Amino acid sequence: MISLDLACDVVALTRALVDIPSESGHEAPLADAVEAALRALPHLTVDRIGNSVVARTDLGRPQRAVFAGHLDTVPAAGNLPSVLRDDCVHGLGACDMKGGVAVALRLAATVPAPTRDLTYVFYECEEVEGDRNGLHRIADRHPELLAADLAVLMEPSDAGIEAGCQGILTAAIVVRGERAHTARSWKGVNAAHLAAPVLQRLHDHRPERVVINGLEYREGLSAVAVRAGVAGNVVPDECVVTVNSRFAPSRSPEEAEAYVRKLFPEYEVLVTEIVPGALPGLDRLAGLVAALGATPRPKLGWTDVARFAALGTPALNYGPGDPTLAHTAGEYVPVEQLRSCEERLSSWLSP
Amino acid sequence: MISLDLACDVVALTRALVDIPSESGHEAPLADAVEAALRALPHLTVDRIGNSVVARTDLGRPQRAVFAGHLDTVPAAGNLPSVLRDDCVHGLGACDMKGGVAVALRLAATVPAPTRDLTYVFYECEEVEGDRNGLHRIADRHPELLAADLAVLMEPSDAGIEAGCQGILTAAIVVRGERAHTARSWKGVNAAHLAAPVLQRLHDHRPERVVINGLEYREGLSAVAVRAGVAGNVVPDECVVTVNSRFAPSRSPEEAEAYVRKLFPEYEVLVTEIVPGALPGLDRLAGLVAALGATPRPKLGWTDVARFAALGTPALNYGPGDPTLAHTAGEYVPVEQLRSCEERLSSWLSP
Repeated sequence: MISLDLACDVVALTRALVDIPSESGHEAPLADAVEAALRALPHLTVDRIGNSVVARTDLGRPQRAVFAGHLDTVPAAGNLPSVLRDDCVHGLGACDMKGGVAVALRLAATVPAPTRDLTYVFYECEEVEGDRNGLHRIADRHPELLAADLAVLMEPSDAGIEAGCQGILTAAIVVRGERAHTARSWKGVNAAHLAAPVLQRLHDHRPERVVINGLEYREGLSAVAVRAGVAGNVVPDECVVTVNSRFAPSRSPEEAEAYVRKLFPEYEVLVTEIVPGALPGLDRLAGLVAALGATPRPKLGWTDVARFAALGTPALNYGPGDPTLAHTAGEYVPVEQLRSCEERLSSWLSP
Repeated sequence: MISLDLACDVVALTRALVDIPSESGHEAPLADAVEAALRALPHLTVDRIGNSVVARTDLGRPQRAVFAGHLDTVPAAGNLPSVLRDDCVHGLGACDMKGGVAVALRLAATVPAPTRDLTYVFYECEEVEGDRNGLHRIADRHPELLAADLAVLMEPSDAGIEAGCQGILTAAIVVRGERAHTARSWKGVNAAHLAAPVLQRLHDHRPERVVINGLEYREGLSAVAVRAGVAGNVVPDECVVTVNSRFAPSRSPEEAEAYVRKLFPEYEVLVTEIVPGALPGLDRLAGLVAALGATPRPKLGWTDVARFAALGTPALNYGPGDPTLAHTAGEYVPVEQLRSCEERLSSWLSP
C-alpha cells in the first residue's frame, strides 16, 4: 500500500495525492492510503464506507463542522504524474480536487484540538452518476455520520467563497406529428416544423435573476438537444427538444417543474432529472465567512453542497483552484491558494 | 443453375422470380437465370453487364421502346417463399417489382416480332445507393444499349400510368452559436434556439403545384432531421436542420437549389444531394398511353424514369402492384393486374 505523509507540506501532499491515480470507480488505493493515514491520528475516529473515508473528532464542542472532498477524478488525459511549475501543481485532479483534499488532510493532521468538532469526509464517485456518489451513499445509509452545524465542500473556488448552488431540471418537450413520404409531404404533419414555437419560446425567454442573502442566482433555460428524423425521405412524426433549467435555490423542485410546464402548456413535458439547489445560508455561516475573509459569490453550477442543504446543513464551496479549469487536461492549482486555504481554515479552527 | 420457364403463365413466372432471392448485391443467381432464359430466345441479342441483363430485338422497326425492371429487392422480412392467396401473389418483391419483371419477360418470350424494336433491361441494385444502380451503370458505360424513342419502367403503379417524377434536393441548413455551460448559459449563444426561424419558415412555406401536360406535380419542402446537442449541461453551438425538397420536373437542379438558398439567405446551406426529376413527356408517349387505356397520373416520388429523361428518352412508370405496398413485409401483387399489364402491352406490340 502506498503511504501518505500528512506531516509534509500541503504542496508535497497535493502532489502525492495526484500521483495516486483515482479515476471514478478506481479509488480503492487512494482510499486505502487516506484511511491508513487518518487511523494513525489518535484524535480521530475513522469509518470506511465503500471507498469513502469518514474521520471525526469527539471533543464535546458545542458546534461541529464537516470538511468534505471527493477522492475521484475524471479520466486521465496525459496529465500524470504531477509537475510543479510556475508555482502551481499541475496534473490530473490537482484542481478538481486533490488540492482541496490535501488542505483538509493537513487540517486533520495538524489541528488535533479544534475549536469545533470536525468531521472529515473523503468520498468516492463524485464525477459520475449521482447514485454512485459516496456522499450520497453516506447520507442515505449513515446520515448520523454527516450530522453537523455547517459544512465546507473543498471544491475549487479560487480560494474564494462560493455559496449555495442552483438547482437542475432536465426535461424532454415532445412535439408529435404524423409520418409521410416526403414525396407526399402534405399527407403528414411535420413534427420538426411544429417544434419552431418551442425553440422560439426558449429564445425569447428571459430567465430571472434571484437575489438571496445579497447574492444573485441567475437562472437559465437552455435547449441542450434537439432530435428529429426517421429517414431522409420521411416526414418525421416526433421532435424532442431537451431543455436544461438551472433554477435559483429558493425555488423548490416542484416550483421549478411547474415553471417549465407553464411555459409549454400545449406540449408533452417529460421531466427526466430534477435536483434541488442549495440556499447560500450565509446567516448561519457568518462566523466562517468572516474567518475566511472573502466576499461570498453565488455558485453557478450544481455541487454537493446541495446534499448538505438537503440534510438541513448550511454549506459553502471553498477550495484552492480555478473552477473553470476542472476537467481540463491542463488543470492545475496555485501553491499560494493551497497555502492560503490551509492557513485560513487552520486559524478558524484555532483558539 | 435455377432455370426459368418463360412459357408458363405470368402468375407462375412471378412466383418463380420471387422464389429466387435477390436482395441488392445478391442478384447473381437471378441474373443468371434471366440471362439463360433470354439467350434461349433466337430473336433476342443478349448482353450481360455485371448482374444486369440487356436483351434486344433488331427488326429494323422505325421506333424502339425500352422495358426496364430491376431484379433486386429490399431485405427479406419473413416473406419467402411466395404464396398465392386471394388472387394475389404474396412474397418479397412480388409488388416491387418481380411482378413487373415477369410481365416484361413474358413479352420477351411471347412477342417475337413486335411492331417496334424492343430493348429489355433487367438490372441490379435499384434499392441501394445510386452509384451501384445497374441502369445508372449501363447509362454511364454503354449508353448505346439504352438508345430508344420511349421507355416503360415496370415499377408498381397499380397497373395505371404514372408519368414523369419529381426531382430531389437534400440540404443541411447549419445554424451556428457559441458553447457555454448551461449554469452560465448567458455566456453562450444557443444554436438550437436560433434554429426556430428555420423551422417556422418551413412550417409557413406553401409549396407550389406545378401543372405539366395536365398533370399536377405538387412540390414539398420538409425538415427530415434536426440535430443539436453536445452534452446535457452544454449550450449547443450548432444546430443542423436537414431539408428534403421534392421539386417539379420542370425545374432544373440549379433552379431547385437557388429556390432553397433564397428561402434561407442568412444561413449556411450545404447541398448534399440533388437529382433532376423527369418531365412526363406525354406528347411523345401519346400512342402508348392510348394503348394502355389509362389516364396518366403524376408520379410523386423519384424513380429511374429520371435516368431515361436524362438521356432524352420519355418514360413512364407502368406496372402491376400498389406502389404504397413496396418495401412492406406484406407486399403482394394482384393476379388481375399481372394479366392486364401483360395483355395491354402485348396488344400495343402486336400488329
